[in-house]
Amino acid sequence: MALKKGKKNCITDVENIKVGHVTLYEKISETDTVCTGVTAILPHGDNVFFKKARASSAVINGYGKTTGLVQLDELGVLESPIMLTNTFSVGAVWQGTLQYMLDRNPEIGDSTSSLNIVVGECNDSYLNSMRLQAVKPEHAIEALEKADNNPIEEGAVGAGKGMVCFGHKGGIGTASRIAGDYTVGCLVVSNFGKREDALFADFREKKIETPDGSIMMIIATDAPLYDRQLRRLAKRCAAGLGRTGSHIDNGSGDIAIAFSTSNLYNHSSDNIVETMSYVRDDDPLMNQLFQAVIEVTEEAVLRSLTNAETTEGRKGRVVERASFTLE
Amino acid sequence: MALKKGKKNCITDVENIKVGHVTLYEKISETDTVCTGVTAILPHGDNVFFKKARASSAVINGYGKTTGLVQLDELGVLESPIMLTNTFSVGAVWQGTLQYMLDRNPEIGDSTSSLNIVVGECNDSYLNSMRLQAVKPEHAIEALEKADNNPIEEGAVGAGKGMVCFGHKGGIGTASRIAGDYTVGCLVVSNFGKREDALFADFREKKIETPDGSIMMIIATDAPLYDRQLRRLAKRCAAGLGRTGSHIDNGSGDIAIAFSTSNLYNHSSDNIVETMSYVRDDDPLMNQLFQAVIEVTEEAVLRSLTNAETTEGRKGRVVERASFTLE
Amino acid sequence: MALKKGKKNCITDVENIKVGHVTLYEKISETDTVCTGVTAILPHGDNVFFKKARASSAVINGYGKTTGLVQLDELGVLESPIMLTNTFSVGAVWQGTLQYMLDRNPEIGDSTSSLNIVVGECNDSYLNSMRLQAVKPEHAIEALEKADNNPIEEGAVGAGKGMVCFGHKGGIGTASRIAGDYTVGCLVVSNFGKREDALFADFREKKIETPDGSIMMIIATDAPLYDRQLRRLAKRCAAGLGRTGSHIDNGSGDIAIAFSTSNLYNHSSDNIVETMSYVRDDDPLMNQLFQAVIEVTEEAVLRSLTNAETTEGRKGRVVERASFTLE
Amino acid sequence: MALKKGKKNCITDVENIKVGHVTLYEKISETDTVCTGVTAILPHGDNVFFKKARASSAVINGYGKTTGLVQLDELGVLESPIMLTNTFSVGAVWQGTLQYMLDRNPEIGDSTSSLNIVVGECNDSYLNSMRLQAVKPEHAIEALEKADNNPIEEGAVGAGKGMVCFGHKGGIGTASRIAGDYTVGCLVVSNFGKREDALFADFREKKIETPDGSIMMIIATDAPLYDRQLRRLAKRCAAGLGRTGSHIDNGSGDIAIAFSTSNLYNHSSDNIVETMSYVRDDDPLMNQLFQAVIEVTEEAVLRSLTNAETTEGRKGRVVERASFTLE
Repeated sequence: MALKKGKKNCITDVENIKVGHVTLYEKISETDTVCTGVTAILPHGDNVFFKKARASSAVINGYGKTTGLVQLDELGVLESPIMLTNTFSVGAVWQGTLQYMLDRNPEIGDSTSSLNIVVGECNDSYLNSMRLQAVKPEHAIEALEKADNNPIEEGAVGAGKGMVCFGHKGGIGTASRIAGDYTVGCLVVSNFGKREDALFADFREKKIETPDGSIMMIIATDAPLYDRQLRRLAKRCAAGLGRTGSHIDNGSGDIAIAFSTSNLYNHSSDNIVETMSYVRDDDPLMNQLFQAVIEVTEEAVLRSLTNAETTEGRKGRVVERASFTLE
Repeated sequence: MALKKGKKNCITDVENIKVGHVTLYEKISETDTVCTGVTAILPHGDNVFFKKARASSAVINGYGKTTGLVQLDELGVLESPIMLTNTFSVGAVWQGTLQYMLDRNPEIGDSTSSLNIVVGECNDSYLNSMRLQAVKPEHAIEALEKADNNPIEEGAVGAGKGMVCFGHKGGIGTASRIAGDYTVGCLVVSNFGKREDALFADFREKKIETPDGSIMMIIATDAPLYDRQLRRLAKRCAAGLGRTGSHIDNGSGDIAIAFSTSNLYNHSSDNIVETMSYVRDDDPLMNQLFQAVIEVTEEAVLRSLTNAETTEGRKGRVVERASFTLE
Repeated sequence: MALKKGKKNCITDVENIKVGHVTLYEKISETDTVCTGVTAILPHGDNVFFKKARASSAVINGYGKTTGLVQLDELGVLESPIMLTNTFSVGAVWQGTLQYMLDRNPEIGDSTSSLNIVVGECNDSYLNSMRLQAVKPEHAIEALEKADNNPIEEGAVGAGKGMVCFGHKGGIGTASRIAGDYTVGCLVVSNFGKREDALFADFREKKIETPDGSIMMIIATDAPLYDRQLRRLAKRCAAGLGRTGSHIDNGSGDIAIAFSTSNLYNHSSDNIVETMSYVRDDDPLMNQLFQAVIEVTEEAVLRSLTNAETTEGRKGRVVERASFTLE
Repeated sequence: MALKKGKKNCITDVENIKVGHVTLYEKISETDTVCTGVTAILPHGDNVFFKKARASSAVINGYGKTTGLVQLDELGVLESPIMLTNTFSVGAVWQGTLQYMLDRNPEIGDSTSSLNIVVGECNDSYLNSMRLQAVKPEHAIEALEKADNNPIEEGAVGAGKGMVCFGHKGGIGTASRIAGDYTVGCLVVSNFGKREDALFADFREKKIETPDGSIMMIIATDAPLYDRQLRRLAKRCAAGLGRTGSHIDNGSGDIAIAFSTSNLYNHSSDNIVETMSYVRDDDPLMNQLFQAVIEVTEEAVLRSLTNAETTEGRKGRVVERASFTLE
């Protein structure tokens, strides 16, 4: 029995989460097109460094370049926004995010510690002239500054501008579910799957040859969960992904990050010992949270398809909008 | 596009793999019924200790008691049969397997090293009076001695005798696929899922209250793969599981072990340096192997249901045969 | 600057921890000697199943057969005693521990869930006729029943009876340190190291040919730490081990388990959400806890040597007491 | 018994490995000093993307921002140079390394796949005005272009320019050992440890308050080892680190990467199946390789101290040269 959807059916149903897109599109020459972008996710409206969100990750298939997971998994907290972009723009987006954070936190790297920046990516080189490195640090800052809690744009937008999913135009997708008193939201950048593998629609006829692709899956919840539990949520994305028809191909960087907006962790404190609350693992609510993750992952992928427009990219390549509709 | 099935659609399609079941069933009293068993999987017909199989595992959800994974993952080889049973019989089956191996290998624990025994389990306490610990070491030995390469019995047999899946009788299931020149086989012990979660049949009406359960998934292949790659295969079981409707519940020990019958590793050798062959990760064959894992996992679960008979267990509890049929 | 030792310099300095040994020693024939045992560690004096201890593990080298780590790491709690024995007695000790727990908890495996049993081991086959499997389930029960909070016997006792360390008689060792308001204790079973590798004494002359061996390291603390943090403690055992001269050899199962006696987790509860306390990772206390782990690991190894008597085992083999003294 | 040192006692004793430093030092104002740099390690003299090196990593303590480990661990190969710098220059160095690789490989991101870039870092903000982000992409390119197989400069040079170790000037250190027919080399960036913790010298008197710091440890060998085995080598760095006196403090990103220059893996191939050679895990050579890792890690740390000059950094802070000498 499927869970109830959130009001906006969007990751921003989790209170205070903010999302911003910057989309870049320009035909540069006969063969080159800039068709890419940046998406920024802020776990809450406050200072992300000073109020860290509990977080964890699951590397479902590690053919990916996401930065920041080493520290995120060691300490169980997220202290930067989660940034999404194309594979060759990780450096630029990392740089822009650093600048954004330094500008707002004069202590970082001076009187207090360093900063762990999370940037995820998918390879949009089928449509985007990725070698041109069109994304600049300022695009990351712009995406961060534009971020708000409204329903988000999906499809061929932000980091999803150049992505291809099951042989059709993919990109940004989102969904949410209610589990008990809590909300679980998901935002994906979909860029994986062969046309004939889709389980939700009959895509067998035409075929384009794209590389294996990837998917970034960001899970957010206001349920009080700590890192070990959030890792359990992140791992369930694999089941949602399996339902779409994915084979989690070799070249697909399928990476999930889950965070909670409860129990924020202050950067510094005079306390030696603190307390936090958490949902008991054996409470039925936990299974609902797992179910919610699976449902939002699957639906976010489908919505990334149904909300994406036919897009022309480099070398005159065109990726078509998928023709199925969601119930 | 689904892959072609193996001749027997069975894990024993992978050449030389042997499977044996011992089933225990006895009504002991009004309230107690022994309804359990042991299943043994031998990776090949030769001495398993002296010719170790490349292997790895994936803990999809770790609410389980499988033994032997620490060493299997460190060294990347399997040096014992894989034994399956109920949760409280892990000790007895471990003991019986040790005896079986010591009897056949007088060097172990004397002139040569120790032995790493793999025993997986699911909790069959809904039907089986598990506290009685009816499984004895000799049952493990019997299962090992009976093992052969024939098509295997499925459903309420061996370790699957007392298992419950999606509110119906589950247990042993198997399936196989052809990927290129190679075969991928799967054997599961299915013991998970709520009736209303099944995606493959409409099971919503009646409801029995079983605990979260578990699933053991054993993946075998003759493709030359080494430990890192076999771990990639094992991880894909999560996607197959997701397709059946599983939420990978909190209390479900969902554990996958994958091994290859190619490139057997001699226990001892005078060589300092040896060679092995392996499929390139970026060859399209690898994606077919991943696809095969997902398909055989899903189908083995379904077959564990369609091949299981209605079973009466302890406290007069009856678990019914599922009524759907496979195409 | 070394930390202050606990009152007993023993793992039982952590309040309520109980340890019990059963030692087996018998010359059976010209060639066979039983020279082994069981050591039981109870995290507290109460029901271990109903009041679970926060716990985690670190597999420093996985050539070992410890059971129970899969679930311990998934759920972050210990719900059984930690049992230590020789490699071929894992099954018997598992079985005895199960019986002990079932006898005291009629609900387990009936109305409530299963039970996750932790048994660690080292290979004592240099001195002990391990193939005889002299340890029986009742020895595990006896060790559990004898356990108390007194200073513990060290050296050639309990699970340490037949162990060899740096070419000398090793076995059980313990130590403790004070960090802030808290205590960190360690108990090891030492069974590793070549004579010439010792950094703490000049052991170069005589040489016996033992297999690579292993070490089990159990870290206990009353500091409020949760699973992620306890895993950090467990990982630091590698540094303590390195200081003794260990190369963490291929055949050495070097496994650490850390648990806290604070924040016990009730087996069941009506609460959906609970709270726990924890030491902040960035508080200087955390570094002291890390230091304490390194110091107690190193010292427990040394004490396992200085407290062990010269022992004769199978085939007339004699392993001598180490002659150095601790400051 | 310590192993024999390599000819240069340097990571470049492993044939064909190339190392290059770029050092930045400039007093900008009363309070700001640029005191940092970049160090590049090329696993061999050939095209690193087309001939990938087998590799793995071990996160000993994850308070670090190293990029590229997700994919390195999934695929078991290194396809970029290993770059080292300060924490806030990860983005710039990543960018420069991407440019360097794109310039030499017109296929990357066009007709062939993406690129996984490994950048490690330590926090040099005690001496370096890290917020100024003085390192630019071109410094990474310069370090790569300058790299050669000569004995390398150690101490306050390259990425080590601003680092502090045990309260004294640290930075780049290297060492090598011979194990059988093979060589094991290590390069570290040392930036950890409190003065009073050093085990190798009496540093107790004066005290400077530095943050917890970090250490990057790069292990190279020409022994034929594959990813699982290289991960075992990388994990042994923890023991070498322990010997120096490190407590692997909370804020220390202690990260090891190990690679082999044997068995290079071609980026693409017409073969479905390939072969590789590897040292048997149970050969005594493997233990020597482990020992070599521990010895080179410890010695590289010590040499990073003895080879570093007293350095003045931002805010007039001076970190002194350590006064002990190595045997």
